[in-house]
Parts: sequence; C-alpha cells; structure tokens
Amino acid sequence: MDVSKVKALTFDVFGTVVDWRGTIISEGKKLSEDKGFKVNWAKFADSWRAGYEPSMNRVRLGGLPWMNIDALHRIILDKLLSDCNIVGLTEAEIDYLNRVWHRLKPWLDVRAALERMRQRFVVAALSNGNMALLVNMAKYADIRWDCILSSELARHYKPDPEVYQTAADLLGLRTEQIMMVAAHKHDLHGAQAVGMKTAFVLRPMEFGSKQKSDTTQDTSFDMFAIDFEDLANKLTVAR
Amino acid sequence: MDVSKVKALTFDVFGTVVDWRGTIISEGKKLSEDKGFKVNWAKFADSWRAGYEPSMNRVRLGGLPWMNIDALHRIILDKLLSDCNIVGLTEAEIDYLNRVWHRLKPWLDVRAALERMRQRFVVAALSNGNMALLVNMAKYADIRWDCILSSELARHYKPDPEVYQTAADLLGLRTEQIMMVAAHKHDLHGAQAVGMKTAFVLRPMEFGSKQKSDTTQDTSFDMFAIDFEDLANKLTVAR
Repeated sequence: MDVSKVKALTFDVFGTVVDWRGTIISEGKKLSEDKGFKVNWAKFADSWRAGYEPSMNRVRLGGLPWMNIDALHRIILDKLLSDCNIVGLTEAEIDYLNRVWHRLKPWLDVRAALERMRQRFVVAALSNGNMALLVNMAKYADIRWDCILSSELARHYKPDPEVYQTAADLLGLRTEQIMMVAAHKHDLHGAQAVGMKTAFVLRPMEFGSKQKSDTTQDTSFDMFAIDFEDLANKLTVAR
Repeated sequence: MDVSKVKALTFDVFGTVVDWRGTIISEGKKLSEDKGFKVNWAKFADSWRAGYEPSMNRVRLGGLPWMNIDALHRIILDKLLSDCNIVGLTEAEIDYLNRVWHRLKPWLDVRAALERMRQRFVVAALSNGNMALLVNMAKYADIRWDCILSSELARHYKPDPEVYQTAADLLGLRTEQIMMVAAHKHDLHGAQAVGMKTAFVLRPMEFGSKQKSDTTQDTSFDMFAIDFEDLANKLTVAR
C-alpha cells in the first residue's frame, strides 16, 4: 500500500510489543523458588490473561463501572491465587506480582525496529493497559514512544470505536492518517471501523509453543508482517 | 528537601522547557525575508503570548466552550495578522505559522538535564499545550519524555486543580509523590493546591532581555533552581 499519507503508527502492546506470557512465567518461577510454591506458571499466565477479556467486556457492556487494567488484573489475580492455593503473600507482595504487567519484556525485534519507524512516523502506544502501567513498562524496558495513549483516556476498552477515535483526536490526525499495528485481528477490525489503516504482525509465540491463535492473513488489512523488523522494512519500501 | 518519596517530575513546557519567544522571532524573521513583511516579531511574539492567558481564562470560566491551544492560538493569530497588516498568506501558510508552537526550541540546558532526571524519576510534560502539539514538539526538538500529559486530558487549563489531579491519577501516584517544575509561580501554586511538591526554575530570558516577571524566591516552594542542570544537581544531592 501507499503509506505516504500515514503520519502515525499506533501499537497494541500486550502480545504485540511485549511477551506477557514469558515474563509472567519467568517472574513466577522466581517467586516459586523464593517461597517454595509449586505452581504451573504457564497455566497461571494463561488463566490470568484469559480472565482479562471477559472482565473488560463486563466494563464495556456496563456490568462493571469503569476501572483500569491494574484493577481488573488484581480482581483476576486474587481469584487465581486462591484457586492455585498460593497463600501467605503479603499485600505488598501481591501488589508487586500484580504489577508484573508493568515489567513485561519486549519481543527482541521491538526496540530497534520502533526506533527505525520513529524516524518517519509518530510512534505511539495504544493499549488497553492504563497509562501508569504503560509508562512504567516503557521505562523498565527502555522502549521509546513518541507518545503513550491508552484506552483509559477514552474510558472505553478496545475494540470500542471511542478508543481509536480519541487517539486520532489527541494526535490531531484524521483516522486514515494513522495505522494501527497489532497481532490481534479484533483490534485491527476495531481500528478499521473508524477508518484507520491496519498492519497485522505475527506473534506466533504469544500463547506459547502450542499456540492455536489465528495467524492467517486477512485481505482487508493494509499490511502484513512477520515481525517488527519486517514491518519497518515494508513501511520504508512501500512509500 | 527530602525527595526520596518523589516518583515523578511533571514539567510546565512553554517558557520552562522551550523558548517560545526566541523561536517565534526566528521563524517570523524568515517569513519576513521570504514575503517582504515588515513586522516587529518580538512585539508580535509578546502579543501572541499575551492573548493566550485571557483566552484560556475564557475557557476556564465558561465563556468559550472547551477548545485546545491550537484553536486558541489560531483565534489570536488571525486577529494579530490583521492588526499587523500581514496579508496575502494562504490558509496553509497561516496554519504552518500557527504551528510554530509545535516547533519551539528547548532552552540549551534542557535535553541533557532531562535525561539525567529520567534516570531517577518518571519525567512527564504537563502543559496547557494540546497532546498533538507536545508530541510534535518533542519529536522536532528530540526531547525524551517518559510520558506526555496535557490539560487537554482533563479538559481544563492549568492552574485548575483538575489538571494536576488528572496527571496524578494517570501516573498512578499520590499528588505528594509528584513534583511540578515550572518557571511560573501561578502554575506551582495550582500544583500545591492539590498537594504536589514544587520546584521553581528561573527563566530570566523567557520574555526577552527586558523581562519584568517575578523571579524572586517563594519560600512555600520545595525547591529553587537557576536552570535544569541546577535542578538535576539538587534532585540528586537532596536525597
């Protein structure tokens, strides 16, 4: 596609930019060593993540008042700790564990490719993660965003159209001047619904080696890339 | 003061971080050379800036509906162009001139000192400038913020308390964990009103060499610095 009119790239974060599953497993294992817990952390990570979509949907449909992802993560975590018989953690330790989402590690191709894309585009996070989470994550992982945008600013969660439209308004751009980048099709469909351009990036390891998520192409997307390096190449070549 | 509990520094931008007056004069002179306009650009810059406070106040007091700084700058600019007999500019040229505020240059001590402060604190813009303006400015001037926050996110202008409180909420911090940095006392008084810590930084050239603005110390502020380098030194030493 011709990307000469695209001024900004907005990035989904969980799964697209950072490896939530790998980071949770890694931090969980350390916790097990410290405390002697016997936990299947891969399953723990998957359950935590699996609770996230339904709880966001409860907010989206009005079943829960607006609350940010830190609060939703904590509700799911409290239940999960109980289900997994993880007991004896102090409030500070539970809060620290809940904030593992603030310390997620980027996929290895992210930093250098983002910096390349930043030379030509405004490069912004556009995540369901709350602002504080995204700020801490960027600082911890040394990711340089031109701007951090969050669903929290619209008080709606993706894929509600308000999130994408708010991002465009705040960037002072028309939606067609923005390309949403994500490893998840429902996010890109949400962006398309308000007129944004879309780039689908594969993250075949997001859900581990047995991943069953849909990684086929969708011809309605404007761009398709196997990783961020590939995306940076295509964004430069495609002009 | 003991800054060990301070987690984030929020910075006023116009005048504190960037030299709006010098940049407008410099771009204005170029425009004069191109177009043959005879304009006193120092006076032009001062008038533009002088129109900003009353027009923000009209928004603050409900006399104007919410509009961002780009829109307010444009209203003032249109009148100023007419007052100064600057005619014949195309809409694109006027829009470009209005966006000089997106291209303001930082004071020379800013970049390196911000980077030092970023090693220990979350470093965020907290400006009456709109998000797009601040994003473009940071990119143009190569300023690395951990996070850009704007009055636009609260739909209030500083020194309204909503602006400072929104910033604290989005950063996930209590107000006393944040230090507001500004060269303007009314901004710091606004921050104090919600419980933020304050640092007053001198910018003796903000309004030119004949500046009459109040640069005396105010004992209610937590910190006083002659520039950003001094501030960075004091923030490191003061722990």
